[in-house]
Amino acid sequence: MDPRPIGVFDSGLGGLTSLRELRKILPGEDFIYFGDTGRVPYGSRGRDTILRYARQDVAFLRTFSPKAIIVACGTVSANALAELRAENDLPIFGVIAPAAAAAAATTRNGRIGVIATAASIRSGAYERELSALDPALEIFPAPCPLFVPLVENGRFRPGDKVAELVAREYLEPLRTKDVDTLVLGCTHYPLLTDVIAGVMGPGVTLVDSGASCADHAAARLAHAGLLNENSTGSCRYFVSDSTHDFANLASLFLGEPVSDGVERVEIETY
Amino acid sequence: MDPRPIGVFDSGLGGLTSLRELRKILPGEDFIYFGDTGRVPYGSRGRDTILRYARQDVAFLRTFSPKAIIVACGTVSANALAELRAENDLPIFGVIAPAAAAAAATTRNGRIGVIATAASIRSGAYERELSALDPALEIFPAPCPLFVPLVENGRFRPGDKVAELVAREYLEPLRTKDVDTLVLGCTHYPLLTDVIAGVMGPGVTLVDSGASCADHAAARLAHAGLLNENSTGSCRYFVSDSTHDFANLASLFLGEPVSDGVERVEIETY
Repeated sequence: MDPRPIGVFDSGLGGLTSLRELRKILPGEDFIYFGDTGRVPYGSRGRDTILRYARQDVAFLRTFSPKAIIVACGTVSANALAELRAENDLPIFGVIAPAAAAAAATTRNGRIGVIATAASIRSGAYERELSALDPALEIFPAPCPLFVPLVENGRFRPGDKVAELVAREYLEPLRTKDVDTLVLGCTHYPLLTDVIAGVMGPGVTLVDSGASCADHAAARLAHAGLLNENSTGSCRYFVSDSTHDFANLASLFLGEPVSDGVERVEIETY
Repeated sequence: MDPRPIGVFDSGLGGLTSLRELRKILPGEDFIYFGDTGRVPYGSRGRDTILRYARQDVAFLRTFSPKAIIVACGTVSANALAELRAENDLPIFGVIAPAAAAAAATTRNGRIGVIATAASIRSGAYERELSALDPALEIFPAPCPLFVPLVENGRFRPGDKVAELVAREYLEPLRTKDVDTLVLGCTHYPLLTDVIAGVMGPGVTLVDSGASCADHAAARLAHAGLLNENSTGSCRYFVSDSTHDFANLASLFLGEPVSDGVERVEIETY
């Protein structure tokens, strides 16, 4: 039993897909969520920039003395996880390995699509992880650079003609590859689940990297005796840009009001 | 005659639309261009964040002892120009007033559309400036939040189905208002000129805020005797993210290679 909070961060809204799952399976935990909304998107930036931002995100969360940090961001997980782990003496969980494990366990025909940001795809992290699990897997990666701007602008619902057109452009090539499993390798993408599923069709299973990571982290924390099962959990939200805009979209996505609990942080000072 | 350089900045690529015009009309000047590619886009962020970033951009450019700074960014011009001018003892030119003057001089039916980022439209700066010039003008503002992500992803050419769909969505309502003049109130938007003109039709004159600002600043500097007419001008480029990605898109847009001249700066340290 460990009463310390769990830190969770992402470039923006995407990490809420992990947080929603975490709060469901770990209702007794206290969470500190940081969304770097003043610098989103990460996935179109270079590796040096991503690493610099990620270090500041972790430094901020560490001011709360967390027992673990969940990198609920595919781009940071793919580009900076090794450095963050080497530099910090606490458990740090990323989304790549859990999502890869879930995808490898899901596929029947061994053909897996991976969609993620340009920076994540360029890193090759998902392909390395999947190939390490099973060298026979055939992996089809595709960057989807406009998905994060669409989500951050609240344009993720079925019927949004722009979101649907962009999804068809990115995903039709994967359909022709006969994948039966598609990794949503950026935590923003589960907000587009209905749009993505609409293009891929019912024969393709979508693997939510944020939810996979949450399940994995919860299991590992439980195994290590680090959970906080006796209390009622809480969540504090921090962002680096306007609290108002985040609160609106986050409330919508989480299905509960978060407007009272959002605070602003000057992340570049960490 | 003043040999000091002129500083120009934008959140990313957009300011190059000003720079291209500036270099054409002021071939003897030395320019320092800064694109905040590590934090683009500005236009979807809150005013406090925009002001903080703009102050750092100006502080960086001032390390070159410029004789003037051109805010080649509609979002900063609309949200932070008064503060920047009050805090700095050198001429600072923004895009709003020159673009408004150009639009007021262009319209024949007094009906002017203004497209810009969400932050610029929210500020009301273009409407205030146009109404001050002529209270009888009818002004129709429209935020276009996906235009900057499209441009920064290189998706601004006619035939790009996503860019065209987004443009139709944003601009069709303005067409029905019978505007005869449309202010491209964000310096990224001139890269989308052909796409925008394709929707608006030949009866609508597009006013390029970046070019209007360049013309205005050049005239003011000449009037003040601050030009540097005897030498051959140069340009140095600085960005806050990968120099490679910027060089590619900038070379394409400017029609000349810039790959040798792009340097990286850690803007959050200014």
